[in-house]
Amino acid sequence: MNRIGLAVIGAGYWGPNLVRNAQATPALRLEYLCDLDITRARKVLGGYSTVRASAALDEVLADENVHAVAIATPAGTHLKVAMAALEAGKHVLVEKPLAANLAEGRQLVEAAEARGLVLMLDHTYCYTPAVRELRKLVRGGGLGEIQYLDSVRINLGLVQPDVDVLWDLAPHDLSVFGAILPDDVKPVAVAAHGSDPIGAGRACVAHLTIRLTGGAMAHVHVNWLSPTKIRTMVIGGSGRTVVWDDLNPSQRLSIYDRGVDRCDPEELPAEKREQTIVSYRVGDMVAPALTEQEALRAVMAEFADSIVQGRRPLTDGRSGLRVLALLEAATQSLAQGGIFVNVEQGEGE
Amino acid sequence: MNRIGLAVIGAGYWGPNLVRNAQATPALRLEYLCDLDITRARKVLGGYSTVRASAALDEVLADENVHAVAIATPAGTHLKVAMAALEAGKHVLVEKPLAANLAEGRQLVEAAEARGLVLMLDHTYCYTPAVRELRKLVRGGGLGEIQYLDSVRINLGLVQPDVDVLWDLAPHDLSVFGAILPDDVKPVAVAAHGSDPIGAGRACVAHLTIRLTGGAMAHVHVNWLSPTKIRTMVIGGSGRTVVWDDLNPSQRLSIYDRGVDRCDPEELPAEKREQTIVSYRVGDMVAPALTEQEALRAVMAEFADSIVQGRRPLTDGRSGLRVLALLEAATQSLAQGGIFVNVEQGEGE
Amino acid sequence: MNRIGLAVIGAGYWGPNLVRNAQATPALRLEYLCDLDITRARKVLGGYSTVRASAALDEVLADENVHAVAIATPAGTHLKVAMAALEAGKHVLVEKPLAANLAEGRQLVEAAEARGLVLMLDHTYCYTPAVRELRKLVRGGGLGEIQYLDSVRINLGLVQPDVDVLWDLAPHDLSVFGAILPDDVKPVAVAAHGSDPIGAGRACVAHLTIRLTGGAMAHVHVNWLSPTKIRTMVIGGSGRTVVWDDLNPSQRLSIYDRGVDRCDPEELPAEKREQTIVSYRVGDMVAPALTEQEALRAVMAEFADSIVQGRRPLTDGRSGLRVLALLEAATQSLAQGGIFVNVEQGEGE
Amino acid sequence: MNRIGLAVIGAGYWGPNLVRNAQATPALRLEYLCDLDITRARKVLGGYSTVRASAALDEVLADENVHAVAIATPAGTHLKVAMAALEAGKHVLVEKPLAANLAEGRQLVEAAEARGLVLMLDHTYCYTPAVRELRKLVRGGGLGEIQYLDSVRINLGLVQPDVDVLWDLAPHDLSVFGAILPDDVKPVAVAAHGSDPIGAGRACVAHLTIRLTGGAMAHVHVNWLSPTKIRTMVIGGSGRTVVWDDLNPSQRLSIYDRGVDRCDPEELPAEKREQTIVSYRVGDMVAPALTEQEALRAVMAEFADSIVQGRRPLTDGRSGLRVLALLEAATQSLAQGGIFVNVEQGEGE
Repeated sequence: MNRIGLAVIGAGYWGPNLVRNAQATPALRLEYLCDLDITRARKVLGGYSTVRASAALDEVLADENVHAVAIATPAGTHLKVAMAALEAGKHVLVEKPLAANLAEGRQLVEAAEARGLVLMLDHTYCYTPAVRELRKLVRGGGLGEIQYLDSVRINLGLVQPDVDVLWDLAPHDLSVFGAILPDDVKPVAVAAHGSDPIGAGRACVAHLTIRLTGGAMAHVHVNWLSPTKIRTMVIGGSGRTVVWDDLNPSQRLSIYDRGVDRCDPEELPAEKREQTIVSYRVGDMVAPALTEQEALRAVMAEFADSIVQGRRPLTDGRSGLRVLALLEAATQSLAQGGIFVNVEQGEGE
Repeated sequence: MNRIGLAVIGAGYWGPNLVRNAQATPALRLEYLCDLDITRARKVLGGYSTVRASAALDEVLADENVHAVAIATPAGTHLKVAMAALEAGKHVLVEKPLAANLAEGRQLVEAAEARGLVLMLDHTYCYTPAVRELRKLVRGGGLGEIQYLDSVRINLGLVQPDVDVLWDLAPHDLSVFGAILPDDVKPVAVAAHGSDPIGAGRACVAHLTIRLTGGAMAHVHVNWLSPTKIRTMVIGGSGRTVVWDDLNPSQRLSIYDRGVDRCDPEELPAEKREQTIVSYRVGDMVAPALTEQEALRAVMAEFADSIVQGRRPLTDGRSGLRVLALLEAATQSLAQGGIFVNVEQGEGE
Repeated sequence: MNRIGLAVIGAGYWGPNLVRNAQATPALRLEYLCDLDITRARKVLGGYSTVRASAALDEVLADENVHAVAIATPAGTHLKVAMAALEAGKHVLVEKPLAANLAEGRQLVEAAEARGLVLMLDHTYCYTPAVRELRKLVRGGGLGEIQYLDSVRINLGLVQPDVDVLWDLAPHDLSVFGAILPDDVKPVAVAAHGSDPIGAGRACVAHLTIRLTGGAMAHVHVNWLSPTKIRTMVIGGSGRTVVWDDLNPSQRLSIYDRGVDRCDPEELPAEKREQTIVSYRVGDMVAPALTEQEALRAVMAEFADSIVQGRRPLTDGRSGLRVLALLEAATQSLAQGGIFVNVEQGEGE
Repeated sequence: MNRIGLAVIGAGYWGPNLVRNAQATPALRLEYLCDLDITRARKVLGGYSTVRASAALDEVLADENVHAVAIATPAGTHLKVAMAALEAGKHVLVEKPLAANLAEGRQLVEAAEARGLVLMLDHTYCYTPAVRELRKLVRGGGLGEIQYLDSVRINLGLVQPDVDVLWDLAPHDLSVFGAILPDDVKPVAVAAHGSDPIGAGRACVAHLTIRLTGGAMAHVHVNWLSPTKIRTMVIGGSGRTVVWDDLNPSQRLSIYDRGVDRCDPEELPAEKREQTIVSYRVGDMVAPALTEQEALRAVMAEFADSIVQGRRPLTDGRSGLRVLALLEAATQSLAQGGIFVNVEQGEGE
């Protein structure tokens, strides 16, 4: 098989990881690292690399040995960079979020679909062994009916100059929700509260509440100001409940056979009816064995595979639109004091 | 000194703890355990006790050896039971929440003040060594300006037959906020989201967002359905940030000299202005040594002390009103889809 | 059923726990708390108790309403106190260790057996839900062949005036080993190393290495000087391995389907023979649900049951002799610079 | 400054890490990756590297652009490979342990000293920010007098085909002891116990007890068969005690102001003399802020620096001899049933 020629665009925070993982992916051939600041690109490549550095995106896109690009530039530039790539006939892997807003995101999805090109989101967490297991478990019905989701993603983080904490961190949680929830459980409306206690000019602490079809509630807490780091997601089901602690490498997933069941009061003796409206299950906990694998390696493999097979990747452009729709509704809610704002539907079709 | 004669009213979940701690408090003399179900009261006392069981509250209140009562009956009965005690001239220690609603709570506060009797809330957590240390730290300015508070109180809990998870669990968090925050930081408005995924007829999972004077935000997450137990509060300050993990007995408080400071862009070189809007402190962490002491023992001592000294206890009736005002506003917000509802002021004067 | 009249002897550190749990055991009737220092006994009973305090052991033993005694006096007094009780025809529950040395322990066992009286050791840990589960698991073959045991019991502990850290703490580990190991896995020899870095006059830190029949090794680390508290036991088997962390109430037992298997080199391709001498299993982990129950409650119930049924308790006098035999061999090893000393056999028959 | 030409020898488990870190070290110029299996070397370099692969050590050593080598071959080959390098005038960085035995190690040290070449051990842990802080703390007197050391290094590890668990894992602990202990605290004698429950032909579980000058005891527990991973070292001092938990990135070092002090009995009231022979300090805990830095990067920098400055590196050949002297004594003890074996002195002069 011929290898897919790749250019990485953007040599900032995330670019070096794309470079390293692209080089380790047999189906890819890394041709360029492209950055407006060529010194930065050269520094990332280091003194021992045969990969070319370039400051000229058009030159890179004009190279017919480049079949695909991986874009790690700021979100505000995604429309321009990704559109240029698509128009040059290149497949595109793009950092989250897909674009600066839903309308721009839609332009990219339409452009990719019109040309039959792969447009894939680097929703990295969706490719971790933990989330792959969660996806099997939740979509496979292993938890029963979903009752609630709760995600906490807090640490002393980089206060971004262009986006608030919601746009910076919540795409991780929202893309995981999208990857693991069954097709008939969708976000209906979202309410957001945020605060900016350091005067950064944008929310540094935020809480998202999402109403899902079926009545369950999902909640996301993101925070740039926490001195401690927490990366935990709980998915409560009528059958079992799973806790994902991404900072506990020896036990990332814990599946509890615990929960609360509602009793049928008619089956209870009269004097107990008022008190005993529920019963409790307190069973074993199982922590499934997970392979250790760098998620970005799997992202690269999925990108290459979907190009070769001409199929949609797991996290295609539409998964990026679903995240944008949630973020836009959240931003609107934030501006309106936390009321519930409906989430635009039809993004996943 | 003559000891203060005490009767414990209510032999349910919490009553036995009051009985045990009252007996261990030298300034108190436990005279009765009173419960409508006298068999339950006798069972709590066991076969080796000289304390009397009684099913007749009026008989207990008529006994002039009883100077004070500790009430651990359901919240819906507090008005009736506590009012009867106050009218009989007894000092009152009452379980949280003070009453079933703010209006009833006010009646109790007025009745106690009119008669010069002590009305104290058993806000147990406020008497733990951890919260006493937090109070000193936060009110003493040790954290700098308060930026945010975040409290999580989740576990597989008893779904209560009469109150939702907010009224059951959040009083703990709200009373601690009240005890530790400086006098000039007060709740202004509250928004609440809740869900009832098991069909219990009341919210089993809930999130409270509280706007404080000065712009900081406090958040409370309470949940009866979590398979794992978490009891964590983070108080972020402009100087330091403290994490209280009540389930880590060897390190309940962790005080971090970490945080994010906003820079004055004028002081930065032009090319850095956009990026470097903040700077980071990553200093040491200190876990202060705390004595191990059962909080309820300190509750009893404070109750006895305030009776003897004729003074307001740390958690007086007005602290109970402040909690009720927040809970009522939260309930209103819940009913109105999560909008911010103003918190009635003047409860603490 | 008539209740068994009980006297607790010793109102020091552990006595109050015996008093509390005896009162909560329906089959027992607590008659006395006996201590040379009657003020201490009265203080333990408190101001609300109908139980009698006594300073006179002979008076207590002469009372025919007393059928059994629970002894919580220093180990050096066990022979005298327990022998007096046995000679008075009383059943005996005694704190660990059974006696100050093996010879004294044997006198007690012989005296009890000659009179047909129950002699039971309060090896409290053996009655925890965790150890009961471990016993089922290990003796039931659930781990396969036992490969190693490793127990760590360290914290800032009370430096005892009469015994070293081995005699103070290791009885817990040794009695658990005895309770969970299959009958054909016995201690053969023991080596001990200790140190006394604070000049207390006795070892404050010690390590025990025990050779078991079949070639497995058990190790115990006890330490009075550690600033942190650890209570962990690992039991490695050819099939599965279990970790017992007694300080993690939400996950005391973790059963790992992980391990190393030796391969038959003949089955491997020649070029792999040198490297691949073993293979690895990395399977799921299961944390079984355990009931929360105070172990001392179960101790009391077992004591009462074995009296009523005229049978040996789970931790009978001979289990106490097995612990003493190990401790004596360890002390001998310590005195001889850590050489292996054979453990006296025949104690368990 | 001209860069130091480097060749990495050995492309197995550790070699790739040397390659990566050498490339990131400005003072070094990586010329070769050398392995008998050139395919393996090429695979490690990947398809984008300008570094040469070679299967011929003599060719590499003959290249005058190569000034230094970093050796990551099996310990049994160190004498031959490192001696060849030294004889070719190259500086040498070598994986632990320095050589297969003490005699071979001495040959290397003598050869390097005779030629004025740097011989450095890759005792990686000594270059972590945690151990650097420990070194400052312990040698600087911050703990007071050292009372005990306890190191646990257990996990499901690779059963090595050529060495037992002591020679595989304990060099980490022993080299750290060497780096942090004051010059006047030296190992005097060592006793070792081991077992091979899986029939691997060598100890897979082992315990080392080391007597130090001054009477303190150090203990090391290494284990290839543990399903869980622990990397903890406790260093107890008369003043403070520090716990290093290498698997807790947010709190690797915890410095406790806790401990036990011996009282002068003459100063106590008579009735307390027997009981109160010690007093307890229970003060705060401080977790110092540590920078996150890959230790191997600092190893490379120290290697380059010591070459440029013509000085001994922190972990010079003699530090390697001290580890070998301990390992040899331990092996001897293991063969003799665990008796204490004196450690050869004079290795550190």
